[in-house]
This record gives sequence, C-alpha cells and structure tokens, in this order.
Amino acid sequence: MTKQYQAHIYVTLRPSVLDPAGTAVKSGLAQMGYDNVEQIRIGKYIELMLQATDEATAKEQLELICDRLLANPVIENYRFDLIDISRKEATGNRQQATGNMEK
Amino acid sequence: MTKQYQAHIYVTLRPSVLDPAGTAVKSGLAQMGYDNVEQIRIGKYIELMLQATDEATAKEQLELICDRLLANPVIENYRFDLIDISRKEATGNRQQATGNMEK
Repeated sequence: MTKQYQAHIYVTLRPSVLDPAGTAVKSGLAQMGYDNVEQIRIGKYIELMLQATDEATAKEQLELICDRLLANPVIENYRFDLIDISRKEATGNRQQATGNMEK
Repeated sequence: MTKQYQAHIYVTLRPSVLDPAGTAVKSGLAQMGYDNVEQIRIGKYIELMLQATDEATAKEQLELICDRLLANPVIENYRFDLIDISRKEATGNRQQATGNMEK
C-alpha cells in the first residue's frame, strides 16, 4: 500500500557562497532603522506531497529530486522533513524524519 | 542586556495564489519520471540574527520586518521560529518560539 508523505524542503546557500540578495535585504533593513539585524541568508522553502511505499523509499527519492532539480549541490545545501500524512490521518500521530546531506 | 536571537522565517504563497514556479517543477519532475509528486509550492526560507532585549520585542520587530520587507502580505503568508542563542550558549538549552500571522 502506498503512503502519502508531506515534505518540507529547505535549500540554503553553502556558507562559503556569497548571498547578494541577503546583503541587499540587510542594507534595506539598516536604512529602515533595523540596524540590529545581521547575517541574513536567503534560501528556498519547498512543500510537496509524495506517494511512496515506505519512508526509506520516500527519503531516497527526495534526495534524488533535491540533487537533480531543486538544489544546486555545487553552491547549495538542503535538508528536509518528511511527515507521514496517511498515518497522521489514521491515528492522529505525527511521524517526522529528517534527512540532511550535511551529516 | 540585549540577547542574541536566531530567526528562521518561512514565506509561502497564500493557498489561493497560483505558483507558476511550482507548476514548472512539477512538470519537470514528471518528465524525469517522478510522477508521484504533487502539490509543489515554492517559498522563501530566510535565516537571520537579531539582537533584542527580550523575546516579545524580537517577535514584534520580526513581524514588522516580514510585513514591510521580507513578505508581500497581499499574496504571501509567513511564519517564523525564534531561537535564543545567548541562552543556548549559556545553559545548553534551546528556547523556541513560533509566531504565525495565520493564527
């Protein structure tokens, strides 16, 4: 039986990569008077629904999807949370798993 | 004494707003053979450091920053987590607070 998973994916620039958009936001905030804000990094946040037979399969597929399409592994890191929606609906429990390429 | 907070901000399109980038990713994934992926929505994920006297002040300021600069309230929702870094450094505890404009 296939299960329904919800994935929350966070794609961030690697620490060594410059973030011009973040720098622009920082200078914008400083001009607006918020000079107590620092180290702004802007990334992507992706939500999607995925059908898979089990959590390991879903995780494996998500890693492939992130590597091939959602993130650029040369300059970006990603991590994701997987939530088993079918289980949540069935029992009211929330199952969460985290995959992180930085590990 | 000012405290140091780390904020994780999630900016997402409102459910009623179309997401052309998400649709493009979905069709790209389908072409790559991943036809079990659905409901892709692409948002922004922003990390920043903030100095404030207490958590309430930090929260209030973050809401202003999100409303004025980071999100477009007409078409986007946002939520954020606040982590007290100074407390984390001092005691090893991790204090987390969530502000959500949808509440």
